[in-house]
Amino acid sequence: MFLNPHFAELQENYLFATIANKVSAYTAAHPENKIIRMGIGDVTQPLVPAVIEAMHKAVDEMAKKETFHGYAPDHGYPFLREAIRGYYAQHGVEVSASEIFVGDGAKSDVGNIVDLFSDENTVLIPDPVYPVYVDTNVMAGRKISYLDATEENGFLAMPDENVHADIVYLCSPNNPTGAVYSREQLQTWVDYALANNAVILYDTAYEAFISDADLPHSIFEIPGAKKCAIEFCSFSKTAGFTGVRCGYTVICDELVSGGVQVNRLWARRQSTKFNGVNYITQRGAEAVFTEEGMKQVRGVIALYRKNAEVMVDTFREIGVWFTGGEHSPYIWHKVPDGMTSWEFFDYLLQKAEVVGTPGSGFGKNGEGYFRLTAFGTLENTAAAMERIKRLLRAR
Amino acid sequence: MFLNPHFAELQENYLFATIANKVSAYTAAHPENKIIRMGIGDVTQPLVPAVIEAMHKAVDEMAKKETFHGYAPDHGYPFLREAIRGYYAQHGVEVSASEIFVGDGAKSDVGNIVDLFSDENTVLIPDPVYPVYVDTNVMAGRKISYLDATEENGFLAMPDENVHADIVYLCSPNNPTGAVYSREQLQTWVDYALANNAVILYDTAYEAFISDADLPHSIFEIPGAKKCAIEFCSFSKTAGFTGVRCGYTVICDELVSGGVQVNRLWARRQSTKFNGVNYITQRGAEAVFTEEGMKQVRGVIALYRKNAEVMVDTFREIGVWFTGGEHSPYIWHKVPDGMTSWEFFDYLLQKAEVVGTPGSGFGKNGEGYFRLTAFGTLENTAAAMERIKRLLRAR
Repeated sequence: MFLNPHFAELQENYLFATIANKVSAYTAAHPENKIIRMGIGDVTQPLVPAVIEAMHKAVDEMAKKETFHGYAPDHGYPFLREAIRGYYAQHGVEVSASEIFVGDGAKSDVGNIVDLFSDENTVLIPDPVYPVYVDTNVMAGRKISYLDATEENGFLAMPDENVHADIVYLCSPNNPTGAVYSREQLQTWVDYALANNAVILYDTAYEAFISDADLPHSIFEIPGAKKCAIEFCSFSKTAGFTGVRCGYTVICDELVSGGVQVNRLWARRQSTKFNGVNYITQRGAEAVFTEEGMKQVRGVIALYRKNAEVMVDTFREIGVWFTGGEHSPYIWHKVPDGMTSWEFFDYLLQKAEVVGTPGSGFGKNGEGYFRLTAFGTLENTAAAMERIKRLLRAR
Repeated sequence: MFLNPHFAELQENYLFATIANKVSAYTAAHPENKIIRMGIGDVTQPLVPAVIEAMHKAVDEMAKKETFHGYAPDHGYPFLREAIRGYYAQHGVEVSASEIFVGDGAKSDVGNIVDLFSDENTVLIPDPVYPVYVDTNVMAGRKISYLDATEENGFLAMPDENVHADIVYLCSPNNPTGAVYSREQLQTWVDYALANNAVILYDTAYEAFISDADLPHSIFEIPGAKKCAIEFCSFSKTAGFTGVRCGYTVICDELVSGGVQVNRLWARRQSTKFNGVNYITQRGAEAVFTEEGMKQVRGVIALYRKNAEVMVDTFREIGVWFTGGEHSPYIWHKVPDGMTSWEFFDYLLQKAEVVGTPGSGFGKNGEGYFRLTAFGTLENTAAAMERIKRLLRAR
């Protein structure tokens, strides 16, 4: 057998492993102290009652021959595709249920979408970035160009009309920076994609955190996007499904290349290499979109948002540059002058006993920045902010 | 964007769609008649009580902050990997938990494993075959050689020492034929793979149907296999998880190519393009391996096996050549002289109101054969066999 040589080109990502090791070492040395963890982007609140109820009911259905469900439809049960269609309609986006593909999470779909494209594409990826976009293309042996997201552009990279790309990855609200594209900025991207016959792979897993009605939840709110974009979304951050695994990918019939409807390829890819999402999970996901379910998940998001608000207020108060936090569970802030991201990590761990994520772990433009998440409790978040305030003011 | 050109080389598989259309047309014309369906390989019995109980408990854990589970480990929870390790040990196979990767089903893993190999490999696939092996390699643009499985070799193709291959797909107990490799036959395959530096992708999703203690459940029962095989297994047929989605892939540390441990590549592939299996599902899967769970799932398999026995007895009695049925939920039988598989499909539908699957849908060597499944009820299976007996005896 011959192995895929491109795996050897992947950079080992020791980011979270290194963080875990450093935290373990510190904890071992100071067992009595209370560390506040704001590093990992995982939810902490339980599933909401509407989801739990739907899941128990679905488990009971699986216990009886008359109501048992075997293989699910490859692309999702009609009841869930229809519920997602209704959710889009609430944002003024008209997509049909057949353009919505239910999967086991945005990470899988974002990763597997590369199967649809030939290796001759030029891929454009903003830096800093969610590492999956980079690694999946490295594995496929693709040429990657990077686009600088920096403090100057508010970590919202815009296209360079003189540089051609075939595939563009955008994530808004952004992981790791929390920055959100405006309607106008996304229109510029859509225009660029249409002019370049490019496809935008649009990751909107954090859309539920958007609180400003003027900011787009979906790229399909932008005229022309149906012809040039694929959208990935997830229940992970909307409804706390990180350990449940459900997401959806939307590819409109208008997205055509060389006379081929791209969603037919995705349908075939999924029918061949995927076997549908767990019935119990799909019933739980459906419950998110009921009136009660939506009210409940919005209640949970409000808790995280309150944390983010405390964080935003803190960084405003101490005058440290940051982005995110307003429409995102992430705050991305500048580290004190002269420190690297990792130096700040150590400094924060030792002086404030707060754990975050060094920005340099997300790409070269992340150097000098730091990510904190709002997924903890209000009590811990407020305590961490007090510690950070004291620490940074004292400098 | 440039699309993957190899999708255009895929054959559209209309097999199950055509069956559905023909059955609908017949039902519309004869609404009062009772058709017995033995076409689709999906289970019909509900999940067993031990699994249901574990799932309800896990759902309750997800409802409370103290016991909520976010992101699962990418390669499976230790409790499940350890339970699978114990199951292997029962068959005398020593693998470590770290060599076991939990995924969302054998189809996904068998499909996604192609990511690990370069496109220059020569792939050897028996015909007839589970279409996923073929289609995933066509998508990747690989050269495929076919190996004839026929009545002469009992639909158990053996290697040709003069033909080199890099990747070999084997499925035992086989889908669609139900044939099972003996220990000696698998040893021949392992020896071939070792001599050719090839990897055997071994699909053993139906291993729980093996009733003869001399037949191997796992390729790792064969000396040398750890150095040349990857094994895929699933809870789908073992525990009725077709709608739940859980499986596992075993890659031993001994499988090395060019100095690289292949399981490190799979670990990286899964960490990059997959985000772990649902916590509730993993708790359900764990329950399969408890004493009670194992007793219960064996009870369900005994029901399906009883159906298969009735089928085996019928085909023996009427003297029609067949394979499968003894260690498999599938019977693969010869159609009457002069008929194609599809002609027999129509004949059986119209004269006996029984639905099966034309063998030609699984490859050219399937022409003239027909697949029937044992996943129905005993009552329906017995009634179908009576109808087939009358029909074929009358010829």
